[in-house]
Amino acid sequence: MEINKEYITTFFKGLQDEICTALEEADTLAKFQEEVWERDGGGGGRSRIIAEGKIIEKGGVGFSAVHGETPEKILNALKLDKSDFFATGVSIVIHPRSPMVPIIHMNVRYFEMSNGTWWFGGGIDLTPHYVDETDAKYFHTTLKHVCDQHDDSYYAKFKAWADDYFFIKHRNETRGVGGIFFDRLNESSGKTKEELFNFVKDVGRSFAPIYTSLMKKNHELSYNDTDVNWQMLRRSRYVEFNLVLDAGTKFGLDTNGRTESILMSMPPMAKWVYNYQPQNEREIKTLSYLKKNINWI
Amino acid sequence: MEINKEYITTFFKGLQDEICTALEEADTLAKFQEEVWERDGGGGGRSRIIAEGKIIEKGGVGFSAVHGETPEKILNALKLDKSDFFATGVSIVIHPRSPMVPIIHMNVRYFEMSNGTWWFGGGIDLTPHYVDETDAKYFHTTLKHVCDQHDDSYYAKFKAWADDYFFIKHRNETRGVGGIFFDRLNESSGKTKEELFNFVKDVGRSFAPIYTSLMKKNHELSYNDTDVNWQMLRRSRYVEFNLVLDAGTKFGLDTNGRTESILMSMPPMAKWVYNYQPQNEREIKTLSYLKKNINWI
Repeated sequence: MEINKEYITTFFKGLQDEICTALEEADTLAKFQEEVWERDGGGGGRSRIIAEGKIIEKGGVGFSAVHGETPEKILNALKLDKSDFFATGVSIVIHPRSPMVPIIHMNVRYFEMSNGTWWFGGGIDLTPHYVDETDAKYFHTTLKHVCDQHDDSYYAKFKAWADDYFFIKHRNETRGVGGIFFDRLNESSGKTKEELFNFVKDVGRSFAPIYTSLMKKNHELSYNDTDVNWQMLRRSRYVEFNLVLDAGTKFGLDTNGRTESILMSMPPMAKWVYNYQPQNEREIKTLSYLKKNINWI
Repeated sequence: MEINKEYITTFFKGLQDEICTALEEADTLAKFQEEVWERDGGGGGRSRIIAEGKIIEKGGVGFSAVHGETPEKILNALKLDKSDFFATGVSIVIHPRSPMVPIIHMNVRYFEMSNGTWWFGGGIDLTPHYVDETDAKYFHTTLKHVCDQHDDSYYAKFKAWADDYFFIKHRNETRGVGGIFFDRLNESSGKTKEELFNFVKDVGRSFAPIYTSLMKKNHELSYNDTDVNWQMLRRSRYVEFNLVLDAGTKFGLDTNGRTESILMSMPPMAKWVYNYQPQNEREIKTLSYLKKNINWI
């Protein structure tokens, strides 16, 4: 089987279906609403949005497959001549109702250019409102297991990459407990396209079991107004990361992407308090964990 | 009197005092809290924050005067050789409690380089949650009056500049009803430094009477949960503008500015709803006014 764009696209569509089904089952209340959209320059997508669930307050699982002339900005950034591009992927951000359940993000993507270059990218990272060491260890152990099946060096490399990528420089904080991040993976890495695609598939398939288990484990924990206030403050950091730093968001907005699909990552509600100082031990502990290079395993 | 940086700095400090006093008087309840800070590279500022007032929910009036080596990024953008810079200014964003009172922003600034170049910049723009034509007309008429005292061409030019600057491209919306915006004003404009400074002074001094009159006129109007919900949605657009597009915010975050002072423009609380559609005539009317090139006068 040739690993071509049609084949990869079909997998990503199926992955979106699988993940949506698993999230609906775990939430037990909310259902995804689908919007199919077309891109002026070529291609389109299926945005699936979930809101007002029992566990999920607002979330999106997006699939897209777009093509057309490569935007000038990207050609310059990649130092490439005029050419056409094709890009497909699945992107997810889930904001839970309870501050005791972590926010999660996952993305898997494939990019190819008319000059024959291609690459895979992706990542998955967890943003607990309060860091729970057990959950962080479970999350990283599971990701390491996925990585190790494909290459012994992947977890260490992609974990460090996530620490750097999901770092909010102006706050001197990581976004959460990190995860894995990788980009521009192609045959120059010493792997075949099939091997790389198998890795990306396994990352994508790891999302539903990981997150539904964290939903189930935490959603019945009790919480109070102080916890919700802290959640709202942590969500504003999420907004800052996505709007100021996230490469995917920038790329989308710069290239006249579909704004509602790009910004489905925004939380339902967020708060900013000037110069907020942590109010209790749990807040202080969480901040102490928002650092690079923590070995969670 | 030579219009040098000490003289300009002294005026801006006094302007911050005047504006804070006027806002406290109009609010009747809340008082500004001051934080004095120093910048690692040179200089510093006085952040004045107000919160939980009768009319103002969260706001900041910042003064700063910073200097040091010009950051690489700015030298490249301005195509300049290595040099030192000095920058001073007053920046304001006020988020009122009531959705019936508009959000306002004002900035006046002076910049000079060790090579002798200098310029003034600034602007003031109004973001009503619901557009009220009378308020918009009053706002623009007052700004035109300020401009006309200095140059007949200023209002038209700077109003158009504000329409372009305060435009949220990815939403195809202006941020509010605009106002005036100007930058890089120096002797090449045909005015002396003193004339330009007199204009900037008048813009700065116009803020307190304009906004306190809008506070008084509107803060007792009744509103309900639908109005507050709409306010939260409009505030999220404000967040998007500031984090994605605002040049001052970008400059500050890029140059390791004081994050809390830069992000004092963030609203106390904001909401995002996927693909929100206006629910009533007032929301529809407001959206119809978020366009460039409206003659408010």
